[in-house]
Amino acid sequence: MITEKIDNISVTTKANVYFDGKCVSHGITFTDGTKKSVGVILPATLTFNTGAPEIMECVAGACEYRLAGSDSWVKSAAGEKFSVPGNAKFDIRVAEGFEAYHYICHFG
Amino acid sequence: MITEKIDNISVTTKANVYFDGKCVSHGITFTDGTKKSVGVILPATLTFNTGAPEIMECVAGACEYRLAGSDSWVKSAAGEKFSVPGNAKFDIRVAEGFEAYHYICHFG
Repeated sequence: MITEKIDNISVTTKANVYFDGKCVSHGITFTDGTKKSVGVILPATLTFNTGAPEIMECVAGACEYRLAGSDSWVKSAAGEKFSVPGNAKFDIRVAEGFEAYHYICHFG
Repeated sequence: MITEKIDNISVTTKANVYFDGKCVSHGITFTDGTKKSVGVILPATLTFNTGAPEIMECVAGACEYRLAGSDSWVKSAAGEKFSVPGNAKFDIRVAEGFEAYHYICHFG
């Protein structure tokens, strides 16, 4: 199932712009204080570092990801999720000419 | 005053990606059904077309804009707004090397 909309949240109006705009996200906060972000990754190969563990939920498009210590690129498409441990690196790639990877990032 | 946060809204999780990612926004909906968007424009010179009239509110960074029929570029920085008529073109530019223009777009 694809999460098309998230209700009853606050949004931080200033975007987070990473890697010269190849990744852009907006932070959202739930009424209980939980923070997530909604974002998009354009065609590129990027390396991210986590603080807290993250669950990346794809809401449109697709990416391939590679966790630290793995040689395998794994596809994640709309409706799918993958988990990244805390304090870890991981790579995401979206091939040139493909649709951007749209995601919800769940922390913790 | 800068609008840093918007409370009690729904966010559409899939971003709007325009001009190869030079403009990225997320749609938000208020409880009364009002729609706005929060977005960012990276260094570029872009031409937009409005449907409904728009008010562009800057929340971080700055841009210069030029309305249809004008030769003048006008600066709009954090805390400032400008209005664009409906069914009109307007140009926005953010100079190379400058901070992105972060905005709230109010419709109608």
